[in-house]
Amino acid sequence: MGLSTRHLLGIKDLNPQDIQLIFETADTFKAVINRPIKKVPSLRDITIANIFFENSTRTRLSFELAERRLSADTLNFAASSSSVSKGETLIDTVNNILAMKVDMVVMRHPYAGAGVFLSKHVKAQIVNAGDGAHEHPTQALLDAFSIREKLGDVAGKKVVIVGDVLHSRVALSNILCLKQLGAEVMVCGPTTLIPKYIGSLGVKVEHDLKKALNWCDVANMLRIQLERQDIKYFPSLREYTMLFGLNKQILDSLDKEIIIMHPGPINRGVEITSDVADSKQSIILDQVENGVAVRMAVLYLLAGQN
Amino acid sequence: MGLSTRHLLGIKDLNPQDIQLIFETADTFKAVINRPIKKVPSLRDITIANIFFENSTRTRLSFELAERRLSADTLNFAASSSSVSKGETLIDTVNNILAMKVDMVVMRHPYAGAGVFLSKHVKAQIVNAGDGAHEHPTQALLDAFSIREKLGDVAGKKVVIVGDVLHSRVALSNILCLKQLGAEVMVCGPTTLIPKYIGSLGVKVEHDLKKALNWCDVANMLRIQLERQDIKYFPSLREYTMLFGLNKQILDSLDKEIIIMHPGPINRGVEITSDVADSKQSIILDQVENGVAVRMAVLYLLAGQN
Amino acid sequence: MGLSTRHLLGIKDLNPQDIQLIFETADTFKAVINRPIKKVPSLRDITIANIFFENSTRTRLSFELAERRLSADTLNFAASSSSVSKGETLIDTVNNILAMKVDMVVMRHPYAGAGVFLSKHVKAQIVNAGDGAHEHPTQALLDAFSIREKLGDVAGKKVVIVGDVLHSRVALSNILCLKQLGAEVMVCGPTTLIPKYIGSLGVKVEHDLKKALNWCDVANMLRIQLERQDIKYFPSLREYTMLFGLNKQILDSLDKEIIIMHPGPINRGVEITSDVADSKQSIILDQVENGVAVRMAVLYLLAGQN
Repeated sequence: MGLSTRHLLGIKDLNPQDIQLIFETADTFKAVINRPIKKVPSLRDITIANIFFENSTRTRLSFELAERRLSADTLNFAASSSSVSKGETLIDTVNNILAMKVDMVVMRHPYAGAGVFLSKHVKAQIVNAGDGAHEHPTQALLDAFSIREKLGDVAGKKVVIVGDVLHSRVALSNILCLKQLGAEVMVCGPTTLIPKYIGSLGVKVEHDLKKALNWCDVANMLRIQLERQDIKYFPSLREYTMLFGLNKQILDSLDKEIIIMHPGPINRGVEITSDVADSKQSIILDQVENGVAVRMAVLYLLAGQN
Repeated sequence: MGLSTRHLLGIKDLNPQDIQLIFETADTFKAVINRPIKKVPSLRDITIANIFFENSTRTRLSFELAERRLSADTLNFAASSSSVSKGETLIDTVNNILAMKVDMVVMRHPYAGAGVFLSKHVKAQIVNAGDGAHEHPTQALLDAFSIREKLGDVAGKKVVIVGDVLHSRVALSNILCLKQLGAEVMVCGPTTLIPKYIGSLGVKVEHDLKKALNWCDVANMLRIQLERQDIKYFPSLREYTMLFGLNKQILDSLDKEIIIMHPGPINRGVEITSDVADSKQSIILDQVENGVAVRMAVLYLLAGQN
Repeated sequence: MGLSTRHLLGIKDLNPQDIQLIFETADTFKAVINRPIKKVPSLRDITIANIFFENSTRTRLSFELAERRLSADTLNFAASSSSVSKGETLIDTVNNILAMKVDMVVMRHPYAGAGVFLSKHVKAQIVNAGDGAHEHPTQALLDAFSIREKLGDVAGKKVVIVGDVLHSRVALSNILCLKQLGAEVMVCGPTTLIPKYIGSLGVKVEHDLKKALNWCDVANMLRIQLERQDIKYFPSLREYTMLFGLNKQILDSLDKEIIIMHPGPINRGVEITSDVADSKQSIILDQVENGVAVRMAVLYLLAGQN
């Protein structure tokens, strides 16, 4: 009984049984990393290359720790996207690394579909650690795992994803994962940042933050990607914060206690204020902790298929 | 019997018994790293994050080697200081790393007090690897350890620290450590680079290099930080070298053989000439070697407190 | 029975018996890295510093993997060449690393002779991973190893090296290695990119690609180093590709099936077309795989001499 896929390119590759298996395996690994002895020898004969064509301290560290705690050998490769503007060069880069007998590739790439493309052309198993605005499956898995941990189950829960849904791989993977697990999903943001196709994914759309929060059990506040100069935001940052920023006042005015999530890194005072981020309703640091356990589970289960 | 502190934020945290304990532990580790088998399994279940918000090849490598030889798992994180201009963000960064179950943080940061601030807000143990112009405690410990190794004891010895004392964390930590151990300390440099408060630390001040050298048993020649564009030096570099640069001619004109130290990296021909740096009186490379042993001792003793 | 040298600074250091010993050892390690358990504990008490004063993802990863599979402790140090414009500083940098009890230094440096210089001034064993336009001995060894693997022997084989021989350390090391092993060597390229002294090395010169290919058993297509702005190419890139680029049409027009090699990374469509690079006659990925095995052999044999 293993996963139904050799790669993890997107949530699309997984069925509900796969996700359940990943969660149960992650439960075990979460117990492991909370022991004094945090390592298991499971992948001691596996070499994993972390190939990051985009910067990502947080995701890279989380994968690297997951790999080390499984006793895998890791190889880090950071490349500027400029050197890989052609698909052929991407294949050459990866093929060269594979010729060195690497078993698995964890890849982040600025282009949507880079992982899928690669998986058709090379023999190694590919784990997508974010491809453009497309998917970020391990983030969605750790988010759903954190909801399950906090609320007992994901099925039947109401989750709102707030912010720049249009440019977010986190949003898309989250929607796909939550729907698979039977949650109700809403997106909330300015019309300019909600993609037209969103209705076809079976999610509700709401442009009033307070209404969205009153509806939900869980609010996942997306990061406004200030560093992306190519994204022209409308409304402006100040307007965005006024309309869609979550502060303690709004939170306390709701009918019930909702759970607050954020994929990080936080722009404190923009999409979320410090008192909300650090409140008892926030499970932001649980998400980070669960990230290592969920990634251990994914790597362990994929490795088991060879 | 352990250290009296959970963190090593500065020499201020240590009493003379602590320093003695670190030195005796470092003696053991120095023997270890000179064996064919240089590793011990002491910290095999400990994960240490090296978080460097400022570049430091030398100190980072020394800590990393110390960690590896204790069999710890290490995680390297280099950040430009620009991304951490707010204290909150620093806490967020470190909290995220800690949520991944990191036990200890070795941190270098451009701001004085960053380590102290952090230790009040996060659960991990903090080792200060240099905070602004404030403290660099492991450097002071390895310097004192090297004097003790060469001269048998630190108590009663006369040590002069020559150079830009004003901008130097090495100078401040050295003064505090040497005073604790009973040494007599003098600082020597142009009036513009000697801080006004220096007298309150119980050290002598001398502006004539030759007089200072004739007084001392050990001269610790600070590095002129040429890369710091924000420091306006007076006197100019040429004048500095003429007045405070140490060359073989001066060294040979002294009444006795003194010991020469330098925290590195050396600007050969500026604060010290090559023939002095490479002379038999120089213990510069011993300092580097002892750095690994002293850092092993600090990490080992701190880890023992959990 | 070991190598006749303590360092590997260039092919010049090796006699034919040394090369034979490296190849036979690499045969063993190639079998190891194709096992499910890819590691051996041979160098578990050895610390190796990889000091790269020039970028080289490919060579660095290959060495790092070789070191890991020998269970050595590795230390990575990347330096911009700007900080090492003086020989003294290079010695200081390396001496500091050595004072931390490093056993072996794998170094890439932009200046020809850097490795030789270093080996005269420090105690560690030096492996040259490329010094300017001078030598790149492990590349030459893995190339010859790959020819031997494919054709049974190197002696008596005809090898043509095509391209910018003038600026290539790969070309020089290959010529020296192939000649030692009894191969016939030809260089082929525009007169502007063939050094005047080339005749003195006992190699043929040919300016017509087709004639060269019809003569040879193996063609090693050098990379045109597009990133080197300081090299003024004549002919232009387009003319170069027209005259010296290898495509499938030329390959199919030859009298026999020749072997195609390339040190990588490939500029597809410049020195070699994709259909040639990916053809059955190409052993480019075998070269990469053999690189790890050959480097394991070199490190293992050098370590055996202490």
